[in-house]
Amino acid sequence: ATVSSVVASNHPKFEPGQLVLGYSGWQDYEVSSGKGLTWLDPDAGPVSTALGVMGMPGLTAYVGLLDIGQPKPGETVVVSSAAGAVGSVAGQIARLKGCRTMGVAGTAEKCRYTVQEFGFERCLNYNDDDFVEQLKDACPDGIDIYFENVGGKVFDAACALMNTAGRIPVCGMISRYNDTALPEGPDTLPRLMRAILTRRLLVCGFIITDHGHRLGDFLKDMGGWLESGEVHYREDVTAGLENAVHVFQGLLAGSNTGKALIRVSDDPTMKR
Amino acid sequence: ATVSSVVASNHPKFEPGQLVLGYSGWQDYEVSSGKGLTWLDPDAGPVSTALGVMGMPGLTAYVGLLDIGQPKPGETVVVSSAAGAVGSVAGQIARLKGCRTMGVAGTAEKCRYTVQEFGFERCLNYNDDDFVEQLKDACPDGIDIYFENVGGKVFDAACALMNTAGRIPVCGMISRYNDTALPEGPDTLPRLMRAILTRRLLVCGFIITDHGHRLGDFLKDMGGWLESGEVHYREDVTAGLENAVHVFQGLLAGSNTGKALIRVSDDPTMKR
Repeated sequence: ATVSSVVASNHPKFEPGQLVLGYSGWQDYEVSSGKGLTWLDPDAGPVSTALGVMGMPGLTAYVGLLDIGQPKPGETVVVSSAAGAVGSVAGQIARLKGCRTMGVAGTAEKCRYTVQEFGFERCLNYNDDDFVEQLKDACPDGIDIYFENVGGKVFDAACALMNTAGRIPVCGMISRYNDTALPEGPDTLPRLMRAILTRRLLVCGFIITDHGHRLGDFLKDMGGWLESGEVHYREDVTAGLENAVHVFQGLLAGSNTGKALIRVSDDPTMKR
Repeated sequence: ATVSSVVASNHPKFEPGQLVLGYSGWQDYEVSSGKGLTWLDPDAGPVSTALGVMGMPGLTAYVGLLDIGQPKPGETVVVSSAAGAVGSVAGQIARLKGCRTMGVAGTAEKCRYTVQEFGFERCLNYNDDDFVEQLKDACPDGIDIYFENVGGKVFDAACALMNTAGRIPVCGMISRYNDTALPEGPDTLPRLMRAILTRRLLVCGFIITDHGHRLGDFLKDMGGWLESGEVHYREDVTAGLENAVHVFQGLLAGSNTGKALIRVSDDPTMKR
């Protein structure tokens, strides 16, 4: 998504200087019919949050955790990509709902700020050799909700610990996006289906564009949590459109720390 | 489950001659404290239906299809083990809810009576060489609900055809119960997770003992459907307790036709 300011307009709804949220792609300027553009309130906070915690990533965490995950106080919630734009919010909402929240991330530094800045009880590095044992140790009562962003070995480890009637909102599987063929065997699908059957798991994929009816609730709740300081966020800003491809590749490799943003010009809401 | 008649009783709730539903195991007589026993009404129909269409198998179909599957008129529902005690009921309820219902079974004879007796639109034999193509042909608009009883190649074929926002109630995986190790590769789990993610599928295991609160609705609905002739059932009765092991092995191999029952004595409700 992109935040832009209107330079010139023949559209009755938009005036020069207004800030808008859209899907303009990687470019400096866009000619738009106005379709798909949303006004942004410059007083609502830094306009960059419309791309992260107050935007689609935040709404994704909100819907995935609350509507699919259905967290109950005292439950154990494990969030993969816990340092990222979606995972960090999912874990913070779980904490606000009274759950024990465990994060999983890919570097010691990400694990550090996931605990310190986002308030997860613990965050494990899946690159540690003893990650599987660490996860087991961190979840002595099993896992009630596993918020899935990555696939691969984190999914396998979490699955093995799921409690009866556990829920797995499937938001992403970033470890597999670059795969061009199925991994070698053995075929672990029957093991997953057996877990789903015998432990009555719910596994549910979702995409945020199906859940627009929750936007109002989300903006109200998240606005309140940000204002009260109960939810924190982190942005990883790179200047220059020419760096977009490199940053995107880094995202797939896990090198960003916070919501990955490309700044193409100064943020007018930060000058105040 | 077992249907028995009370021979002698010191329990205030039970009298000799009463029929009861219980879980007595494979034996001619049981000494019971009364715990877990339910009275059966001898006027409600053949008492054997308490073990099938009016019992746990019927309730399993009812909950899996209606509560997890959430069928809508015009949707395409595929039921595996469609000739069996659970699948046959799941398909008939789907038809009553206005869905197109396709069955999958393992012999031509099972397919025949699944269409003729249970009213499925079509029933495919998964042992046919071109089963995958047949399923595709039978579901030109994709599959909205796949009622899963078997796992293996039927699951794989159905998964490939699932529509966006499709539902997969996972009731059983009979093709895998005898496995002692994971199958050889490739590992197809990432393919399933990708389908769950990109098509926003819901996959949900269930066990009927979690859904006792639906028993009242079920008995009312199913009683009505049986009385009006809208739901049919089939029983595969073998006489003699000494045949129980053999019949159970046959069930796992798919050789029964209808709800597999062992008769240890005459059914008093059939003498009327």
